[in-house]
Amino acid sequence: MKINLSHGNGGWETSKLINEIFMKHFRNDVGTNDEDASVLDLRGRTAFTTDSFVVKPIFFNGGDIGRLAVCGTVNDLLTTGAVPKYLSAGFIIEEGFDVDDLDRIARSMREAAEESGVLIVTGDTKVVEGNGGIYINTSGIAEVEGVGVSFRDARAGDALIVSGTLGDHHACIMSGRMGIQNSIRSDVAPLTSIVGGLRSGGVTLHGIRDITRGGLATCLNEVSEFCGAGVCIYEERIPAKPDVAGLCGILGLDSLYMANEGKMLIAVPCDEAGRALEIIRNDAYGKDAVILGEFTGEVEGVVMVTKIGGRRYLPPLVGETLPRIC
Amino acid sequence: MKINLSHGNGGWETSKLINEIFMKHFRNDVGTNDEDASVLDLRGRTAFTTDSFVVKPIFFNGGDIGRLAVCGTVNDLLTTGAVPKYLSAGFIIEEGFDVDDLDRIARSMREAAEESGVLIVTGDTKVVEGNGGIYINTSGIAEVEGVGVSFRDARAGDALIVSGTLGDHHACIMSGRMGIQNSIRSDVAPLTSIVGGLRSGGVTLHGIRDITRGGLATCLNEVSEFCGAGVCIYEERIPAKPDVAGLCGILGLDSLYMANEGKMLIAVPCDEAGRALEIIRNDAYGKDAVILGEFTGEVEGVVMVTKIGGRRYLPPLVGETLPRIC
Repeated sequence: MKINLSHGNGGWETSKLINEIFMKHFRNDVGTNDEDASVLDLRGRTAFTTDSFVVKPIFFNGGDIGRLAVCGTVNDLLTTGAVPKYLSAGFIIEEGFDVDDLDRIARSMREAAEESGVLIVTGDTKVVEGNGGIYINTSGIAEVEGVGVSFRDARAGDALIVSGTLGDHHACIMSGRMGIQNSIRSDVAPLTSIVGGLRSGGVTLHGIRDITRGGLATCLNEVSEFCGAGVCIYEERIPAKPDVAGLCGILGLDSLYMANEGKMLIAVPCDEAGRALEIIRNDAYGKDAVILGEFTGEVEGVVMVTKIGGRRYLPPLVGETLPRIC
Repeated sequence: MKINLSHGNGGWETSKLINEIFMKHFRNDVGTNDEDASVLDLRGRTAFTTDSFVVKPIFFNGGDIGRLAVCGTVNDLLTTGAVPKYLSAGFIIEEGFDVDDLDRIARSMREAAEESGVLIVTGDTKVVEGNGGIYINTSGIAEVEGVGVSFRDARAGDALIVSGTLGDHHACIMSGRMGIQNSIRSDVAPLTSIVGGLRSGGVTLHGIRDITRGGLATCLNEVSEFCGAGVCIYEERIPAKPDVAGLCGILGLDSLYMANEGKMLIAVPCDEAGRALEIIRNDAYGKDAVILGEFTGEVEGVVMVTKIGGRRYLPPLVGETLPRIC
């Protein structure tokens, strides 16, 4: 069955679609499910974020737009050091979209939500003319216990840890878009357990960022500007999967500017860096974590020490790389 | 200037667009503005909702997609009896979209947010291929003080008040789509002050619904099913603007199934109905409010007593009426 414009009429067809697809996967005891808004009991302060997902292709090696929509917002919430609790899901569906694909996406969202420890408690569905595509917005709410985490607290001397290999999601989507058959998988994953592990391990967190569009280099520029300290990283430490590095070599891509969907940049005081790294590496999504460099008063902006000992300034991403990456 | 795919790269161009358009209008002291999520101090329980807006045309008599996106989510939050506080704004923009139009939309959102008493505290921008269109998702957070409002509390004997004329938004968008020049204006408005007035006036609220897609008839079916009581309304009391009634007459439309964007259905105990009506009518957006009927144990489903004294069952909307109405 295909989606048609009557599925967006707000009447019987919309209600049937919501019950047969979304409620089947998302029903829970917390959201009121069939009212216009859900009422939630939250503790402490509240982190709030939103993200829309327009990735193409919608199914890819290692995930799909549904898993991406859950993990992306969960990871944004985690950057505050908070515990993600509830998500909304807003679907904009083009007529002609396959209902079985919608079911597969909703199932994937539920699975990613379960893995992330969140519930999808409110939603919306719109149908537009088009060619059978789909866009998903997720917004998220998290509980902030104690002081929140912010790169405002980072300072010269702090170590910068990256939680794993760079460019995997970008290389996967690019391969899919170009019709290249390879083993590259997107890294799309919720990093709830990495952040939870650092918190329960008592690590002092001076900043967490989700490294997505724009890649690590753009992210480093943002945090450098944010806290007012320079950044120095070391090229030889940059973690990369061999197949991704191979694709980058062939296509002339730089993994520092490529998008990731399950990687974080974490700042900790240098004397806690070893312990933090051990905690992250013990997590299924953090096995390839490294201490990539540090905040420093010695440089301005973001500098990379190259493999041959030179210094290269890394500006933020300028221009279009790969559209509809997430 | 037109939006192009590099505005969605997550790098320099995205950052420039966000600063020059969105931050210009939305910056505030509460949202952290430049982090991945905003951290908020909320009181009481929290209402949470989401809605995507795909209306076409994006500018129409009485409003635009931006005002719609703010008011729609604010009104959804109000249905819980809560005080709306914070919104997210997720933009999906097709390449070729005019940046001046984006500025106009963002300004309209800020003005609607100010009127509603909410702040836009977090956002996201994606750019996709296409023909210069725009979709906006807003999610919202409200503070629930005391017990929330739900149609679960409605019962036989309660009066049903509708806050004004029906079908205005639908008739406006349909006129725009058909190129008909007339004076019909969308009713898009935030109903914060109506709900606030009822709460501060101590009116017992047994249910509030935002009457949007599917129209009043679909809304009545939902609430009847929800609380298990039948509904009886009176055709002669249905409020309508003369120009909207005229368009309905010409095109054979039924205002009971037409979309509204600034109208609510409110259930109160019958002995408080007169006082509630007076409060609503004193509000700028409630001047045409009427007591349209009541919940009753005498009928099942939704029944309308016609002008000539007959009885007509009103089913929920089936089939497509006007796509991309909101």
